[in-house]
Amino acid sequence: MRLCRYLFDDEPRLGFFSDDTVLPLLAVAVVTKTDLPESLLLTDYLPGGPHRNAILNLQHKLADLDASRIAEISLPVSDVKLLVPIEAPGKLLLLAGNYSKHIEEGGGKAEERAKTFPYVFMKPPATTLTHPGDPVKIPAVSPDEIDWELELAIVVGRECKGVSEADALDYVAGYTVINDISDRAFRPNPGRNERPKDGFFDWLHGKWHDTFCPMGPAILPADEVADPQKLKMKLTVNETVEQDASTAEMVFPVAAIIEFISSFVTLHPGDVISTGTPDGVGKAKGKFLKAGDQMEAWIENIGSLKNPVI
Amino acid sequence: MRLCRYLFDDEPRLGFFSDDTVLPLLAVAVVTKTDLPESLLLTDYLPGGPHRNAILNLQHKLADLDASRIAEISLPVSDVKLLVPIEAPGKLLLLAGNYSKHIEEGGGKAEERAKTFPYVFMKPPATTLTHPGDPVKIPAVSPDEIDWELELAIVVGRECKGVSEADALDYVAGYTVINDISDRAFRPNPGRNERPKDGFFDWLHGKWHDTFCPMGPAILPADEVADPQKLKMKLTVNETVEQDASTAEMVFPVAAIIEFISSFVTLHPGDVISTGTPDGVGKAKGKFLKAGDQMEAWIENIGSLKNPVI
Repeated sequence: MRLCRYLFDDEPRLGFFSDDTVLPLLAVAVVTKTDLPESLLLTDYLPGGPHRNAILNLQHKLADLDASRIAEISLPVSDVKLLVPIEAPGKLLLLAGNYSKHIEEGGGKAEERAKTFPYVFMKPPATTLTHPGDPVKIPAVSPDEIDWELELAIVVGRECKGVSEADALDYVAGYTVINDISDRAFRPNPGRNERPKDGFFDWLHGKWHDTFCPMGPAILPADEVADPQKLKMKLTVNETVEQDASTAEMVFPVAAIIEFISSFVTLHPGDVISTGTPDGVGKAKGKFLKAGDQMEAWIENIGSLKNPVI
Repeated sequence: MRLCRYLFDDEPRLGFFSDDTVLPLLAVAVVTKTDLPESLLLTDYLPGGPHRNAILNLQHKLADLDASRIAEISLPVSDVKLLVPIEAPGKLLLLAGNYSKHIEEGGGKAEERAKTFPYVFMKPPATTLTHPGDPVKIPAVSPDEIDWELELAIVVGRECKGVSEADALDYVAGYTVINDISDRAFRPNPGRNERPKDGFFDWLHGKWHDTFCPMGPAILPADEVADPQKLKMKLTVNETVEQDASTAEMVFPVAAIIEFISSFVTLHPGDVISTGTPDGVGKAKGKFLKAGDQMEAWIENIGSLKNPVI
């Protein structure tokens, strides 16, 4: 079952997530008379975490409960303030250009996997992560070309360095959705004398505006995912489909991404790696986000991450 | 007085730092019968922090103590395990190319400040930050061109967004030393078909190896710095001077860097911004780090950050 973080009485809580309801872990534990650990870190309850068995036990007990009893303790998602599932990732890593058709729609030339390597960058977690339902803010300093990017995000479950692609999925706690909001036109000091690296730093800095990384709504545990490369994904803006793809289209699949990054950087539980966006971004169509827009970023079996734009 | 973090009985503690001794804050408080707050966050005791007055009061009391009494409670620096002064910066931001002579020694063309903008990138804090005295590890995946970069680092003291250069220094808690270790030759998948952005991502990824960001030994409080652009700096490797410069040579001074970054990213207390390296890096001389080397990165009034290479 998917897990989520949400706010209750101004305190973060954990719950089982379905698309319409949240089942508070604490309520399930009380009703089924089951002990529940005190940790509020979702990674503790996911594959690789110390309390994974406690969750599996709780799910087992839940299966024996009457539907009416479950209904009593369920909260409608619409009544709940969902939070980003990982509050403070040590690293928030993202891939640029990991779907051929997205590389090509941007005017680049996609290489087959054997002939290239993953392009990885970071966003500052504390200022970019945005809860489900919270607004993405168009920056006043550069409002004209703010774009969406629907992505499958990996949550790391166990510390690793130098893992092989064959073993890499053993280190995944689960999967969530990231909307890698991107400013395509950030260009500080327009009176500058252009230097060769200007374009790259504009691109990188354009990823860092406050609120530019919505994440959620929940985490799909890795042990419930038969194949992370077979998930449908769709992003709509004001109910118009803008991205419609599958994780099957990635150049570097999840396991290869972990092998690459862990070849030079130690990964820790709670680190988040977003795996790049498929084609259909606004830039390729001359369409950009504006105040009042409603984005919905959906990935099969994980759920819908909805954020307004202000 | 400078402040540092160090280990005592496996627990982090805070102290006044001089080049030869550490004065435990707790011991000074006991001896002078002064209350001391419980926080272990150095930023709480620096300009912008809630306990700045407590530290100023403690310094005042210390000034009245006999030298023999102070000697009794002093610890030789050589007996102390110093820690990175900021344990977990929310952001670890660094500048590329902020000293003209360094840009030129790398084959680039330096622009005057009015004709360019700061190039900012990030390192992953948890895996790159390295305590004073701890080793920098030559990565087995790319051992050949590992280089030093002596830098003045800013510690942010107060939350800010959109501050002007004129006001920017009000948001600084203090200054420390960073050695921005850099792999100049990281080149995954040598059989690749070169694409235009390969060089940039190689450069960026080459900043991220584990242990590649020594920081310390202490923080010089901002209210004790008349002008951060007048600090001498020197880096030696095995006692040979490799970098010898002054913060006066920066293209973008500290205040302009804060204005630039805060124009699009909210800064928080404890965020760290390293301000770029002067000329004298190894790459320009064909000299690189190897196991057994001893680096010493010194900035006037802050101190010496020493790290061996293994």
